[in-house]
Amino acid sequence: MLGTVTEPIPVPEAEKPSRENSIYRHLHTPDQKPLNLTDAQILKECRSIVLPFHSMDDVNELSVDIGGSLAKMVYFSNTEQGCTLNFYCLETNKINEFVEKIENIVRENYKDKEVTIIATGGGAHKYYDLLSRSGLVVQKEDEMQCLIIGLDFFITGGIPNEVFYYQADDASFVTEESVGEVYPYLLVNIGSGVSMVKVTGPKEGNFERVGGSSLGGGTLWGLLSILTDANTFDEMLEMATRGNNENVDLLVGDIYGTGYNKIGLKANHIASSMGKVFKEVVSGDVEDTLTREERLSKFKQEDIAQSLLYAVSYNIGQIAYLQAQRHELKKIYFAGSYIRNHIQTIRTLSFAIEFWSKGEKRAYFLNHEGYLGAMGAFLLRRESSNCSSSE
Amino acid sequence: MLGTVTEPIPVPEAEKPSRENSIYRHLHTPDQKPLNLTDAQILKECRSIVLPFHSMDDVNELSVDIGGSLAKMVYFSNTEQGCTLNFYCLETNKINEFVEKIENIVRENYKDKEVTIIATGGGAHKYYDLLSRSGLVVQKEDEMQCLIIGLDFFITGGIPNEVFYYQADDASFVTEESVGEVYPYLLVNIGSGVSMVKVTGPKEGNFERVGGSSLGGGTLWGLLSILTDANTFDEMLEMATRGNNENVDLLVGDIYGTGYNKIGLKANHIASSMGKVFKEVVSGDVEDTLTREERLSKFKQEDIAQSLLYAVSYNIGQIAYLQAQRHELKKIYFAGSYIRNHIQTIRTLSFAIEFWSKGEKRAYFLNHEGYLGAMGAFLLRRESSNCSSSE
Repeated sequence: MLGTVTEPIPVPEAEKPSRENSIYRHLHTPDQKPLNLTDAQILKECRSIVLPFHSMDDVNELSVDIGGSLAKMVYFSNTEQGCTLNFYCLETNKINEFVEKIENIVRENYKDKEVTIIATGGGAHKYYDLLSRSGLVVQKEDEMQCLIIGLDFFITGGIPNEVFYYQADDASFVTEESVGEVYPYLLVNIGSGVSMVKVTGPKEGNFERVGGSSLGGGTLWGLLSILTDANTFDEMLEMATRGNNENVDLLVGDIYGTGYNKIGLKANHIASSMGKVFKEVVSGDVEDTLTREERLSKFKQEDIAQSLLYAVSYNIGQIAYLQAQRHELKKIYFAGSYIRNHIQTIRTLSFAIEFWSKGEKRAYFLNHEGYLGAMGAFLLRRESSNCSSSE
Repeated sequence: MLGTVTEPIPVPEAEKPSRENSIYRHLHTPDQKPLNLTDAQILKECRSIVLPFHSMDDVNELSVDIGGSLAKMVYFSNTEQGCTLNFYCLETNKINEFVEKIENIVRENYKDKEVTIIATGGGAHKYYDLLSRSGLVVQKEDEMQCLIIGLDFFITGGIPNEVFYYQADDASFVTEESVGEVYPYLLVNIGSGVSMVKVTGPKEGNFERVGGSSLGGGTLWGLLSILTDANTFDEMLEMATRGNNENVDLLVGDIYGTGYNKIGLKANHIASSMGKVFKEVVSGDVEDTLTREERLSKFKQEDIAQSLLYAVSYNIGQIAYLQAQRHELKKIYFAGSYIRNHIQTIRTLSFAIEFWSKGEKRAYFLNHEGYLGAMGAFLLRRESSNCSSSE
């Protein structure tokens, strides 16, 4: 019966790249060939990371992470000084277009090299033959392992402004340059579905999938693609920004006329997501029956988008809190393509953790939240370039 | 990323009333005027409880529990031998019809008596004036307190076949005549929204709302009322029975081609509820854009109904497990009008508890699952008939 507080909050800037020096602190494995991250900088417009002191000579691989809804890629390109780490994604149902993109990138950026595609995610198995048809070597890597290595890199790797959290007091995003003790933490990866992983260290055996949820990005995108006219995830998120969930959600105040203070429910808490809809469209009298389309048209798409974004996000936040509590983890990293740096999503997840933990746990986010798996696959290969597939 | 196993299970009978003797064991308060439950029996067709040895002379009240979606009533009627405890509910948006029903019942069943309506639920406050207009005395009671007293009565009151659980091995419903130690337990009340209450004893101060969810009945009914042609909750549930969620849900096998055994995900687990929908309707090419109605018509209403029923039920089951775990409670009672004695719902909630707790916790259900609040209000009044409203 508890939901998100819905007062509007001003929209701050999410990314504030700086030029300050940082070193690559990811070296948990002494034999790993590190990326040279000196003066690394995130480009605001595209999230690419410029590495002025890293050489393309050293790069013979690109990596892909093919999930249930999105296919992600990490690849290098040459720049005047050093090179750039690029991030690209496309809907998984356009997998042929995705493979063409790989071929183009290899042709243009990796001229005359023997390139290996390091592949992870469910699609690494499902589309292995398709990826191999390009003539490139394809090496499959375990999804969980890649996810952890990727997150580990972003947390400790010294990319300025990579990690941030939301501060409700002044509605600001605060970048966390030093994470202090890295372990243990809970990783909540939100793609089509949700996986929650307890991580106590960077190596295999130090992490365990402790839970998850089938209510994830695929649920939100699926429902909104038949309840709104939006054609892309970003259109859906933009719609949600313009909506008002109170037109479709049943608030505590709608039921009680006021709050239910005795048990800590405020009037503006969401008692039931989409809870106003049924009673507005179904009268129960046969002669008044509306068609499905007539019913749907009674509601603003924007309001539905906001309601469902809140519902899915808040639900994930609550389960994440309960898992973190159970495993005594104070830090919760939210990642995955669901988040897309969207402010309402970040705010709702942060609110859930803050509310349930009474401020004792904190939700962290990353600028490259959707690319943990692909980044991890890339690094894993560099670490073990002489090994065969771990699958 | 984990969901419900979806293999079909034969449909057994839910209610098997017996005539065996039982006594009213609810007497936690020595001053309470008990109902005479000797030879009490649930009538299968309407869930009324026949009380052959209770007299109508003793009854001067009826009780209502007005929630966000449904208004429930408990009232007595005369029968040849003894009397009958009746249960009635109607959508809250037909509140005027509900009040007329009250007036009719009072006129027919409570002739020449000074009747008190004991009212609980959010609507007790919101519709207090409307209820009072009937000229009857209206006494408001606290919702949580009523809920607990009602559950307590049904658990310990000696109504044969009231409490049951689902046994997956042989897909049967097992009635639990003796509950052994009653406390502590977790009550999960699913109405429009979900409330989870830790109960350590029958008295005020022995229970605490420990959590909840805005993803409840209101969410399922709201979504299905704009995604299907169904006009009632029961039509929606019936639709779900005929559907196949695998046509709209993304299963683990759809992503991996197989299971992901390393982390315990089977191929038929739901990775993402409604996770197949987006990719089937949104091609991303502008020229292929379908209208909302065209998109919706690509899916069977029955499949959507089953997917969302599973999603909401499983999610509640998971959160209930995590709360029960956290508070070290082994018994979980699921109640509220969401359940409606629907087999798929009961099975999904039971599966979630069984799966997450590895069989260590058990989900219990009640034949009068939607009437805890109304029943509790009725009993509370008998207990404290000289006290004023506790609100």
